Order: sequence, then structure tokens, then C-alpha cells
Amino acid sequence: MPSLDPVQSPRDVDSHSPLDHRVLRADVTVRRSDGTPLAGTDVVVEQQRHAFAFGNIGFDFVGLANGETTAAGNVFGGAEPDAAARLVDLWLDVFNTATLPFYWQGFEPVRGEPQTERLLVTARWLQERGVATKGHPLVWHTLAPTWLDELPDAEVEEAVRARVRREVSAFEGLVPTWDVINEVVIMPVFDNEETTNAVTRLCRSRGRLATIRLAFDEARRADPRATLVLNDFDMSTAYECLIEGVLEAGIAIDAIGLQSHMHQGYWGEDRTLAVLDRFARYGLPLHLSETTLVSGDTMPAHIEDLNDFQPEHWPSTAEGEERQAHEIVRHYRTLLSHPSVAAVTYWGITDAGAWLGAPSGLVRADGTPKPAYDALRRLVKEEWWLPPTYGRTDECGSVVLHGWAGTYSVTTPDGTATVELSADRPDLEVVVDR
Amino acid sequence: MPSLDPVQSPRDVDSHSPLDHRVLRADVTVRRSDGTPLAGTDVVVEQQRHAFAFGNIGFDFVGLANGETTAAGNVFGGAEPDAAARLVDLWLDVFNTATLPFYWQGFEPVRGEPQTERLLVTARWLQERGVATKGHPLVWHTLAPTWLDELPDAEVEEAVRARVRREVSAFEGLVPTWDVINEVVIMPVFDNEETTNAVTRLCRSRGRLATIRLAFDEARRADPRATLVLNDFDMSTAYECLIEGVLEAGIAIDAIGLQSHMHQGYWGEDRTLAVLDRFARYGLPLHLSETTLVSGDTMPAHIEDLNDFQPEHWPSTAEGEERQAHEIVRHYRTLLSHPSVAAVTYWGITDAGAWLGAPSGLVRADGTPKPAYDALRRLVKEEWWLPPTYGRTDECGSVVLHGWAGTYSVTTPDGTATVELSADRPDLEVVVDR
Repeated sequence: MPSLDPVQSPRDVDSHSPLDHRVLRADVTVRRSDGTPLAGTDVVVEQQRHAFAFGNIGFDFVGLANGETTAAGNVFGGAEPDAAARLVDLWLDVFNTATLPFYWQGFEPVRGEPQTERLLVTARWLQERGVATKGHPLVWHTLAPTWLDELPDAEVEEAVRARVRREVSAFEGLVPTWDVINEVVIMPVFDNEETTNAVTRLCRSRGRLATIRLAFDEARRADPRATLVLNDFDMSTAYECLIEGVLEAGIAIDAIGLQSHMHQGYWGEDRTLAVLDRFARYGLPLHLSETTLVSGDTMPAHIEDLNDFQPEHWPSTAEGEERQAHEIVRHYRTLLSHPSVAAVTYWGITDAGAWLGAPSGLVRADGTPKPAYDALRRLVKEEWWLPPTYGRTDECGSVVLHGWAGTYSVTTPDGTATVELSADRPDLEVVVDR
Repeated sequence: MPSLDPVQSPRDVDSHSPLDHRVLRADVTVRRSDGTPLAGTDVVVEQQRHAFAFGNIGFDFVGLANGETTAAGNVFGGAEPDAAARLVDLWLDVFNTATLPFYWQGFEPVRGEPQTERLLVTARWLQERGVATKGHPLVWHTLAPTWLDELPDAEVEEAVRARVRREVSAFEGLVPTWDVINEVVIMPVFDNEETTNAVTRLCRSRGRLATIRLAFDEARRADPRATLVLNDFDMSTAYECLIEGVLEAGIAIDAIGLQSHMHQGYWGEDRTLAVLDRFARYGLPLHLSETTLVSGDTMPAHIEDLNDFQPEHWPSTAEGEERQAHEIVRHYRTLLSHPSVAAVTYWGITDAGAWLGAPSGLVRADGTPKPAYDALRRLVKEEWWLPPTYGRTDECGSVVLHGWAGTYSVTTPDGTATVELSADRPDLEVVVDR
């Protein structure tokens, strides 16, 4: 075992890197199970997981985890179960956080018959594979169940409250993060539908802030430790004003969710950083909750509601795939360069069953990875990753760990241990055990 | 004196008119100075004034009222004093409410030397002519004084507070309505300037709601009876979200100011009504505070900040003047059809010195009225106006007054009196006096 300098350095990161703030340094004291320091010993440190949430939707795996044979149960797109099976390894090799579909209409198409068990099975299936989960969304005007429409406002409110309580309670300890309410900026004035849905009606009647408050109140009571996210696609001053009202109202949001479905074209670094700076002003973590880049033609700029553009064929092209690969690298570099960004969720692993029929996946419909998949994997698991690295403990049993915030294994001749590298803890102790 | 039916009806208004809600009916009991009813007597009722605020800017008259000979003192455009003199009668024949320029940079170019006296003289000059006034604006990032820029945030806040207190106190009883704060949606992120102004800096540091609160707190304390307006050009959901935050914060705004500088083209009825409906949801009066329609080419649609388009020549054209006349009628009809609209201020009487150099006036630069002037006058003083109308009191001395909310004279052989027709008072008493 070759012995290197005990100070480990992630590749390509120096003191001037824009990603400096994501690289931490800690003294790790390694002890035997009897408490004595393991001095002057060769160790191998190896990253196991990123603390940063590299997310993707896990919609494709609901059927698979539940042993279903068709995609009939999919509410918001996704691959057929047999195709999904071939995506698992690709998915797990890049992503550590899965967004699970709690769209109300699909989750409870018949009042009183929620698919709680189906999603519990899925969340456990992901947990067993080391994947954290996020529930999306608890309250949203789109895909609100049709049975809600006939209820008067007071009953709609009670049904919304009960639904939030029920889901957050049932998944406590399993789903730690929730998009509590989605797209509130447009919610009370949403009119791209034939008849006004009940959630829009409720929000119009109660007001945006009262609607947010009731959703967050119920979620917080149901799981006080959960990370509760306010999520929106509106990146204008409207969302800023909404957030300022939410903070003024004393509603405790834990993170600001920013959608970035770039079907109409990549934002570029300047616009992205401007958006991040504007929303970072509130001192809350930013979750880039829904990130899309297409590998085909971009959607015409005049389309206002993305749902209004769903061509019969929207192919992935060679040229588009190269562009998508370049853009995904630029975009993730930009996002991670901003200290406020704590999570980035890409919206879809595969083109099969993708939202809007867009070539937005990182894997083609035939299951082969696009260049964007490989490019993102290179970032997440190579450039931003500490591979097995050799070092030697000093006379006190300490070795310096210098790497990306996350989980590391420490392997010694006396056994192996796992350590969490986080900004909160510059001094770490591990006890190795065979 | 011919005696007509004692029930008077404004012309062109029937029970199905969209302006029904602006037409009131009251029993007016006419008494002699000794208290006895004036029964069975011919009376002439004549409208003197609209309760509805038909406003325009009074910027042109500041110099004139103060006996100045040049427009050098004008801060935000306006005609030369000698030209303004020829506009007075045209202005007074249509409008009853004047917006006065309190732009801080012009009002107090040197710290501690405000133009209080100059504006007091103007407000009194207007008051003597039966014109109500509105102060505009107390807090705004644009035209904030440059001497503010070097102060730290805490001193900027104190200077803003002191300025609001000072102006509202000095004009108490003379200026009953204020645009307390202007364009807060964009205020903290306004960047169309070389160096960031101090008010934007303050708003970014304190937040939008705290900035609104400090301005309204000071204004309310200085004149508890004043009508305090929040004003913006942003008609998107951003302004809705801001207002919801303001209401949540318990900041008492008395009216919502909606700008509508339509240099880029008339909105049309549908868009106008949609905007009014969205902002009427808050149950507050709507003031269409800044209304512009050009009588020349419209500004290109891609311009985001209207100030970025100021061509050297922007002529009024014959075709444009006809269009402006049609549009102003359509627009005022639409605005008055909505029960929440309490005030409409047109932005400029003359093209001379008009904002952006646009042909936005109702009078050409040479002082001749455009078709839009005549069209608006016809609405305000003919179609929506009760001309001298004959009636006869019944045996109790009562006559029914059916007309537009406003001030009426009641002339009898025994003398004349003035009466206010308002929704609050269906039964009126007047004492005529010679």
C-alpha cells in the first residue's frame, strides 16, 4: 500500500476554485475499539456519498419497486417497469436523492383510497439502496383530485389539511423532505383549464399566504424534523414578493424550491447566477428542484405554459445531445458554485415517458446513456469525488481528510469505519472495527 | 321654467348600463332658512363636480402658480409657464384632481432646502379652483436625491422617515391623498442605473415589506385622515403577492395604485378588466394612477424599461390622434364600469415637455386640443354629467335626484344650495338661501 501525503486533495480543486466552499478539511482521529489511537498506520479514505443532494425523479421506480408489470399506475410519466429495471444502476451511479410522486389525483383517485402502501414500498426500496427521498408535492392546483371540485371551500380546506397530515405522518422517518406547496404565485389566478379546480378556488378565497400557512402548519405538526420546501417555477419578482410575505407572516420554510425546466433553452451562467443571488437574499437553502435540459429542438419561446406544447414527436438528436451535455456541465458547475444551493434535482432519467414527451432524459428511450449522462457522472463521481486515497495517521492517530462534504469510509489494517465530513465538525473521531 | 318629471335621469344611462353603479338616487328635501319645506316649487338641479376623481398631473402649473417665467424648476416635465397659462381652462374643464410632483431629488436638491413653499402655493392655487390634489411620490428609488447616496442605511432610513413626516405634515388639510411609496416590486432589484441609489439599497437591506411599513407608518402618523396609496407599474402576480404580504403585515393601505402607461399600445377591454378583477380581490379602491395613451407611433414591445426609449422626435400624427381618441373613450368606459375603480389620472395635459418626449398629451404642443381631449370631455362633462335639469318638489318639499355621484346645486325661487350625492346618504336635506 503506497503511502502518500496524509493531506488529501480532491482533484482539480485548488484554493481559487469557485467550488472551494464545498470542500472541507477535518482532522480524523482513528481509534481501535478499545479506544487507543491507531498511530502511524496506513489508511485508505474513500468517498461513499455526497452530502449535496444530487437528485432525480424516482417516478420510474414506483412500479418496479412494487413488482408491477405495466406503467399503468404511473401518474406523472416514467418508464415501463421492465425498462426501469435496466435504469436502476445508471440512476444509482449518479444520484443520491429521489423525488417521489405524491400528485394528489394519482395518489388518491378515489377519496379515501390513497396509495400510501405503494409509495411506502417505493421509499423503502430506495432507502435500502442508499437513496434519500423527497415527496412532491403535497398541495398543488394541477392534478388536484376531481372529487375535490364539488366540495365547498371549507371542506376543501379541511381535505387539504387532512391530506397533508396523513402523508407527512405516514412517511415520517422515511421521507425527510417535502415540497409542501407548489406554484403558489400562479395558484389563485391559474386559468389554463376548462373549469377552475378546487385548490385554485381555495387559494383565491383564502389568499396565497393563508394557503401556504395551512399547508406548512399541518406538515410541521405532522413531522417537526422534516425539511419543508416552498416550490415554484416563477423566477420573477413575484416569487420574491411571495417569499417576503411568507417570512413576514412567520411561516417557517426550510428551503426555497426553484424550478428550472429549460425546455425553451439553457439559461446560461449570468441568468442562473442572477436568479440564485436574488433568492439567496433570504438566507435560506436553495433547492433547484426541477431541472431540465432537452437534447432535441427547444420549445418555441412564445409558449407560456409549457404544458401547451406537446408535439407528437420530439426526438433526441445527435446535435441536441452534444448541446445538452455541454449545458448540463455548465449548469451544474454554476449551481454548485453558489454557496446557497443545497440540492439539484434533474427532472427525469429517461426519455421514455418523459414529461411533455420531451427528450429531456439523460438516457435515451432505448436505455442507452446520452452524452449528458456521462458528463454529469464525470462531474459527480470523478471531478467532485474523492476516490480511494492513501494516507498515514500521525502519532496521535490522526489523519487529515480533505474532500467534498459527504460520507467517507476509513479503512485500516485494524478494520473499517464510516465518517461524515461536514462543515459543522472540523474534528472527527472514528472507531474502526473488523 | 318648464316643469319636468321630478325623477331626473342622466342621459344614456338605463338600468342595464355597465355604469349603473355610479348613478345614485336620493330624496332631497328642500327647506327655507326657517326650516319650512319648500313644497310644490320648481327647482333646477345642476351637477357641479364629480365625486369620481378624474385626475391629471398638475406639474405644468407649479411654475405658473408661483409666478415663475421659465420651466427651469420643473422636475418631471411640463409646459413653460406662459404656455401653461393657456392650458388652465382646458385642464379645469375636464379634470377635478391634480397630481403634484414631490419627486425628492427635485423637491429637495440640496439637503435641508425643500421646496415646501413652492408646492404649498401650487396646492392652494389648485384648491382655489376647486381641484383636489394628490402628492406623488413620497418614497421612490428613481429621483431619490443624490445626497442620500453617501449615507449609511440607518441614516437613509431616518432621512426617508423624516421626509415622509415633513411633507405629509406640511400639507395636512391641503393634500389629502399621497402615493406613499412607488414601484416597490422592482425597488430592491432595480439595476437600470450606473450606481445603486440609496433607496434601492435600503429596500434591499430592509426588505420590501419593512420599507413599505416605515413609509406608511410615518405618513399615517403625520396625517391620520389622509388617503394613503401603494403605487406600482407591475401588473403581474408580483404586485398581487406584494399586496398580500402588505395586508398580512397589517399595513393599512387605503387604495391600490395601478399605473397604466400604455406607450406600447392600448391594453384593450379584456386585459384591462382582467387586471382590475385581479386587484379588486383585496377589497380596496383602485386608483388608475398614471394613464397614458400616445397619439403617435407606439413604443416597440421589446423595451422593458420605458425610460430606455426616448427618441429625439416622437410626433403626434393625425392617424395616431384618432386612435388615441377612440382608445381613451374605450379605456375610461372600461375603467368606470368596474365598481372598484375610484380614480383615474391621465398622465399629462400637453405634449410640451411630456414624459419621454412622447405624444401622450391631450393637447398638442402648440396648445390646441387633440380629438382625445374633446372625446374625454364629452364623456366626463356631457355623457356622464347631469346638466341643468328642471323638477318640482312634492308636498313635503322633496325632489328625487338621480345622477352621478358628486356635487349638485339646487336652485329655487327662494335661493340656492349645494348637495353631495353619495352612496352613503340616500336622504338629503338642503337649506336654500339667497
